[in-house]
Amino acid sequence: LVDRAVTQIVTPGTVVDDELLSPGSTNYVACVASADSTDSDESDDSAHHAVAAVDVSTGECLVTSAADPERALEELQRVAPAEIVVGPNARVDPAALDGDAMRTEFDPDVFASSAARSTLKKYVPRPDAVVGNDAELRAVGALLAYAEYTQGDETLDYVSRIQRYDPRDGLRLDATALRSLELFESQGPSNGPTLFDVLDDTACALGRRRLQQWLRRPLVDRERIDARLDAVDELTSRSLVREDLHDHLRDVYDVERLVARVSRGRANARDLRSLKATLDVVPDVKDALEDADCDRLLSLRDSLDELDDVRDLIGRAIASDPPMEITEGGVIEEGFDAELDDLRATEREGRQWVADLESSERERTGIDSLSVGHNQVHGYYIEVTNANLDSVPDDYTRRQTLKNSERFYTPELKRREDEIFGASERADALEYELFREVRGDVGEESERIQSVADALATIDVLTTLASVAVENDYTRPELGADGIAIDGGRHPVVERQQDSFVPNPTDLTESRLALVTGPNMSGKSTYMRQVALIVVLAQVGSFVPANAARLPVVDRVFTRVGASDDIAGGQSTFMREMSELTTILHHATENSLVLLDEVGRGTSTTDGLAIARATTEFLHDEVGATTLFATHYHELTAVADDLPGVQNLHFTVERGDRSDDESNTPNGDADSDVTFLHRVAEGASSSSYGVEVARMAGVPSSVVARSEELVADSQSGDESGANSATA
Amino acid sequence: LVDRAVTQIVTPGTVVDDELLSPGSTNYVACVASADSTDSDESDDSAHHAVAAVDVSTGECLVTSAADPERALEELQRVAPAEIVVGPNARVDPAALDGDAMRTEFDPDVFASSAARSTLKKYVPRPDAVVGNDAELRAVGALLAYAEYTQGDETLDYVSRIQRYDPRDGLRLDATALRSLELFESQGPSNGPTLFDVLDDTACALGRRRLQQWLRRPLVDRERIDARLDAVDELTSRSLVREDLHDHLRDVYDVERLVARVSRGRANARDLRSLKATLDVVPDVKDALEDADCDRLLSLRDSLDELDDVRDLIGRAIASDPPMEITEGGVIEEGFDAELDDLRATEREGRQWVADLESSERERTGIDSLSVGHNQVHGYYIEVTNANLDSVPDDYTRRQTLKNSERFYTPELKRREDEIFGASERADALEYELFREVRGDVGEESERIQSVADALATIDVLTTLASVAVENDYTRPELGADGIAIDGGRHPVVERQQDSFVPNPTDLTESRLALVTGPNMSGKSTYMRQVALIVVLAQVGSFVPANAARLPVVDRVFTRVGASDDIAGGQSTFMREMSELTTILHHATENSLVLLDEVGRGTSTTDGLAIARATTEFLHDEVGATTLFATHYHELTAVADDLPGVQNLHFTVERGDRSDDESNTPNGDADSDVTFLHRVAEGASSSSYGVEVARMAGVPSSVVARSEELVADSQSGDESGANSATA
Repeated sequence: LVDRAVTQIVTPGTVVDDELLSPGSTNYVACVASADSTDSDESDDSAHHAVAAVDVSTGECLVTSAADPERALEELQRVAPAEIVVGPNARVDPAALDGDAMRTEFDPDVFASSAARSTLKKYVPRPDAVVGNDAELRAVGALLAYAEYTQGDETLDYVSRIQRYDPRDGLRLDATALRSLELFESQGPSNGPTLFDVLDDTACALGRRRLQQWLRRPLVDRERIDARLDAVDELTSRSLVREDLHDHLRDVYDVERLVARVSRGRANARDLRSLKATLDVVPDVKDALEDADCDRLLSLRDSLDELDDVRDLIGRAIASDPPMEITEGGVIEEGFDAELDDLRATEREGRQWVADLESSERERTGIDSLSVGHNQVHGYYIEVTNANLDSVPDDYTRRQTLKNSERFYTPELKRREDEIFGASERADALEYELFREVRGDVGEESERIQSVADALATIDVLTTLASVAVENDYTRPELGADGIAIDGGRHPVVERQQDSFVPNPTDLTESRLALVTGPNMSGKSTYMRQVALIVVLAQVGSFVPANAARLPVVDRVFTRVGASDDIAGGQSTFMREMSELTTILHHATENSLVLLDEVGRGTSTTDGLAIARATTEFLHDEVGATTLFATHYHELTAVADDLPGVQNLHFTVERGDRSDDESNTPNGDADSDVTFLHRVAEGASSSSYGVEVARMAGVPSSVVARSEELVADSQSGDESGANSATA
Repeated sequence: LVDRAVTQIVTPGTVVDDELLSPGSTNYVACVASADSTDSDESDDSAHHAVAAVDVSTGECLVTSAADPERALEELQRVAPAEIVVGPNARVDPAALDGDAMRTEFDPDVFASSAARSTLKKYVPRPDAVVGNDAELRAVGALLAYAEYTQGDETLDYVSRIQRYDPRDGLRLDATALRSLELFESQGPSNGPTLFDVLDDTACALGRRRLQQWLRRPLVDRERIDARLDAVDELTSRSLVREDLHDHLRDVYDVERLVARVSRGRANARDLRSLKATLDVVPDVKDALEDADCDRLLSLRDSLDELDDVRDLIGRAIASDPPMEITEGGVIEEGFDAELDDLRATEREGRQWVADLESSERERTGIDSLSVGHNQVHGYYIEVTNANLDSVPDDYTRRQTLKNSERFYTPELKRREDEIFGASERADALEYELFREVRGDVGEESERIQSVADALATIDVLTTLASVAVENDYTRPELGADGIAIDGGRHPVVERQQDSFVPNPTDLTESRLALVTGPNMSGKSTYMRQVALIVVLAQVGSFVPANAARLPVVDRVFTRVGASDDIAGGQSTFMREMSELTTILHHATENSLVLLDEVGRGTSTTDGLAIARATTEFLHDEVGATTLFATHYHELTAVADDLPGVQNLHFTVERGDRSDDESNTPNGDADSDVTFLHRVAEGASSSSYGVEVARMAGVPSSVVARSEELVADSQSGDESGANSATA
């Protein structure tokens, strides 16, 4: 009944089987294309490198472009595709990408503008109204051509929402920042928790994917951010509504993928039933939002189409607990189709007649051991043991001889058999026909269903953000401030791993550049990341882990943080460090947030200090970016005296009381001498904690004593040193 | 025919199946035990923590002990076991071990001295003569008990070589050193080549395992080292002998594992044939060594027992290309057993008679389409098509009716059939009996075979070391010198990855402590490791990558080299750095080689410099260890002026000619300004290469210019700075 042929090519980016996809994750195949450089008529100079991506399992499709190939690469990185189709002459190099996306070669002809336009025309009436420029047209057109190719050269009707966006509408987070802030992947040796893990309390796969998208691309538009914050705010105060929504959304299936399957003609009856179960939730969700106040929630509520027609159709047509197979009957509900009902009645009556036959024949023949059976090869039979063969009536015809018995049929049994099987076969075929009709009808409504899915996804994320805020005691950030001012800020991930996390304030309003000193383990890195994460969370539209937070809208977060030494050989940490620094110094603006953790470590202290100081001055004088700069160069802290916008912060350490003979403390007995308070304070760190740690580690006491002596000596000569550095 | 029962428990350390083991690797299960601390009669205070290890696949068994639990752990680390059985009250904590050895709990009773002694007695006549102390007795006894348990509670006869060694007989390499010198595992992100990879040109698995053992445990006894070097030396000058040996050894199977399988009664006929093929090599190997000069090669040659008896037995008994199965015949050679030959003859004749039957019966019956066949259920038959049934003779008896034909047999065919199958079955059973006898006889000789394997392994390694020396232009080191003096030294691994590796001299004779400065990428780390690897290679008995090398015999190599920053959170690099430093300062002797790569980076520069200086002074004044200390603290180099045994070395960089307006060089145009020569020179590095690298990386020119200005300022004030540090 089913035609079988190679109808689908499975590649990492175009998988659609649920078994091969993780439930709440996007799975994009992306495409990069550059506008032909000989196209001199290309007027928009800012649109030469395009990235398009489609999730074939859900139909979501994105396209964007940038003038700078690096910028396009950044967008490609955010999409985190499983597979990349690279256009001819594309000047975006996916080899520079993090992760292990497969690179696919595909027919270069599909990248031609005209070919791309005609591909795209199958999806949207006016292709040029959807894309922003020629590179985008090529990228999305070629991408869809590739997607069609993998899915058996059929138009993918469910790819109806091609979203074009401007990369400038999002907070920029390059690969380095995504990695070092551990938004999605832990940097630690053991796969530790990430920001996403902390936030992910979503009820359904739709919400989980949406949360990923939001986190990957925080906003820069204050109105949009505030709209989200309003909604989260309202939900934080309504715990019953929140619980209600969460409970209902738990029953939501992955509608995006279901609808895509429906449209591809690959959905079975169970999929349709799952779709209905999801749609049944919609009225409840609308009810829960009945008293919603804020615009965002109201518009979400209003956008929830209850889709009564679709629900009714599925409810009437599809059996409530259908089998996996759609060709063997049992998928269509009784009462939906009169002809089917007739056929099923015929079949039922016939089977009943056969079921009654055994007792009636026993009675007629007087053979108590007579039995009626059925097998695949011979059909129905009446079986009589050899001992009773004498009692067999004349109308019995021999069908099969066994060792101890014979099997017979009668003309009536034969007639009934033909009737039953004929009806059954026709009914199965009819059910399959009807099912395909229903599936087709539902598929026609895929756009409406997708927009319901869209609203449900957003409601799930907003509810989740509210729950997480309540659970973890987050606060609503105030956006639009002139500088970062955080009261009692916490690191959202680290605070969940520790019993008592010490909150710390941040004030980067007057002095926007802070030099952070203090020993290792004291909390510098955590502190810097916590500030960046609070900024990111706020621009996602989430509450933030702090008592209060007034924040600017940041255009980009830069990070230059501890890279691991490549001790195997050639590759230089310092060169990489300088490259990262270069990116920051060239691209940061006064609206950027810059995290620098140890600049200049991989070279001589003289050079390192000089570079660190020159960098500080440049960021202060030329760029004006909000900056947190952790350093072991205590000499650098003198800069704060010279530059008005530079402040010093340090992490405090408490020294235990020790008797006078401290240099004679035996090894290993000094463990309690230093306590890390993880508390930030104003001013530069001064004490020699490094020597304390050496003592704690058991370094011979004579070495510790000599170190202390040397530190004291150098501090007494410090004035001249500091002067020479600030001259 | 074969009894099946649970006869073996497979654990990571006790696997014996070739499919589960990598060919040239050892696979140890180890056991740690500590002497009971209440045993006050324990006189030898230096023997409280024992480590025993057995490779169940080869029968190799080791036992050692140390007074210091750390020391015992180090030995455990060197063994690199796949599994560890920990004795009750063992004070060696395998959790501290690198790698992922499984920790197994086992019956504590087997650790009791008396129980351990009686276990060991099954393997050696006088247990107490084999072990050095009670802890060793417990460890090896319990270990063998565990090994027996996993192999089905049978005595493992092939574990006949229990080797006790004193840890003090080896060059100490702790886990940190093994790791950072990359002897067996690359530290790089991509699994790069290791020292073992460079050396491993072995011809057979025996040699590969032996090379691993040698590399894991270099020697400290000058005579033993020289004996190996003499052998390598001789082989380097005899390329034909080397090639000859290599060719012959290529035919050597993994005899150690073969013999173990023979002894366990798990070898099949192919295994015995492989054993013979290996033994056949022995006379050739002896021939190749006929003109050997040096003692080591001579004694190896003499220790090669040709084992004519074993070879002859296998040659006569085992078929030359036997099947895998040993129960279905075909494994015993014709002529080995008269009864077997008779049975096989009977079977053969019977089959021939059947084979001839078709033509004779066709002739007799005149049925041209008559055929003789055989099937599993009905045995032999004569098949006649229905059309010819009339011509069937009277002596045919019907056996089976098919659709178009009938099958028959005759009394003679039946008789022959019985005869054939009877003979065949009896022959198979007899073969199996005979095979087990032969295998048992060979098993009796396992000790002799193992000592041949032992000699072949050593010959393979010596040949390999000679080949590697010739191929890579290594030179024979001169041992027993007072300090390290290397002319044209190279890094054995890095030189193989680079087109042109720059050799460098090392002179640590007069001044035994060298401070090494220079920018990253200039070759400091490679240089320091190269010195350590040359020392290790020499003490393994290998030639070394240098033009000339005079070396002391070193007791231990210490390394404190760049650890990766743990940026995920809590754990402090600096604390770990200080712990590693502590180990060095407490345990290094004047005979040790110490590598320090950046001490004090994870703290303030003041503290770091103080600790670095105090460390230098301590190593110089108190310890007297040969030390290479790479540092970015250029201020530290002033120490050389104060301490006679400290010298400065630096890595040179060549600056390209640049015009006067160097501070205005546009970004990215300066790539060729600095060339890393990877060449070491006397004195301290002075120039500001860090700033150059910043320029190369594209840091904005104003920042580079300002950095240069700051460096110049600080250097003009350097006198005071240096003075304060050396005060």
